[in-house]
Amino acid sequence: MSIQRIDAGPRMSQAVVHGDMVYLAGVVADKRGGTSVADQTTQVLARIDDLLSQAGSDKSRLLKATIWLRDIAAFDEMNSVWDKWVIPGQTPARACVESRMAAPDILVEIQVTAVKN
Amino acid sequence: MSIQRIDAGPRMSQAVVHGDMVYLAGVVADKRGGTSVADQTTQVLARIDDLLSQAGSDKSRLLKATIWLRDIAAFDEMNSVWDKWVIPGQTPARACVESRMAAPDILVEIQVTAVKN
Amino acid sequence: MSIQRIDAGPRMSQAVVHGDMVYLAGVVADKRGGTSVADQTTQVLARIDDLLSQAGSDKSRLLKATIWLRDIAAFDEMNSVWDKWVIPGQTPARACVESRMAAPDILVEIQVTAVKN
Repeated sequence: MSIQRIDAGPRMSQAVVHGDMVYLAGVVADKRGGTSVADQTTQVLARIDDLLSQAGSDKSRLLKATIWLRDIAAFDEMNSVWDKWVIPGQTPARACVESRMAAPDILVEIQVTAVKN
Repeated sequence: MSIQRIDAGPRMSQAVVHGDMVYLAGVVADKRGGTSVADQTTQVLARIDDLLSQAGSDKSRLLKATIWLRDIAAFDEMNSVWDKWVIPGQTPARACVESRMAAPDILVEIQVTAVKN
Repeated sequence: MSIQRIDAGPRMSQAVVHGDMVYLAGVVADKRGGTSVADQTTQVLARIDDLLSQAGSDKSRLLKATIWLRDIAAFDEMNSVWDKWVIPGQTPARACVESRMAAPDILVEIQVTAVKN
């Protein structure tokens, strides 16, 4: 079965599709200087919507999500955006932990797995 | 192919089933005040047994596990419980790292992927 | 559908194969004393090549990778090895974060999911 890669860079692909499974990279916000965790979460989830769409899926088909926060104290702030984004009854299995990420101004990174429509 | 969600809350589901695949959320202990890493690990693995059962699977069918410890110094203590829980010859691929989690009294969080029986 | 386990120890398996899916454990370097992040990354990726081969896959079939660094300041050093290892156009979805791991001299741990050839 063939593998389809979306935004396949020399280091990583932004999404990989195999059969009806869609694996996204950990997504971070593009505009980060002076932004809040809520701002970055909004950007990240918009980018995830876009990648899922390119892969033939959408947020109603999420299986799993992993969320990394630079400071776990931002848990409620991140969730204030997350909770409005997910679809009640169609929420993924999720884990959220604290880790530093590739750059100091990355406050949140989210990675999801979904299935195609 | 349809997706079945178990304990589907507004933020996340405790388990998501797609085809024969079972994706659990990161599970933490419910009773945490004054408990040890071993205590919390025991609670977490009992909850995982319960969720796997609801999803039509069990610990003999584990594919993958991710373990987060608040303090990696508790690695041996967590493993003392883990090693008795897993079935020799049917152990999952595993990673275990240190991260802070959603609340300060969460000492361990475990997330597994399994297949249905 | 049966599950095949490679190097199945009492705690974890180094790889688990189900259908055409291959799930590897988080892999760390065996020789760690006095080594650099680049050295350890080279060892880890060689071991991943070996495990993928045993599972009937290879790095052209990677779906997903998770990388943990003890110190995220080593991001560029790890990538200098990673970027030469992956195959352009066949790169996985990836996330890379900072976490302490099971032993203080583990500087990098990498876990991948792939599909069989």
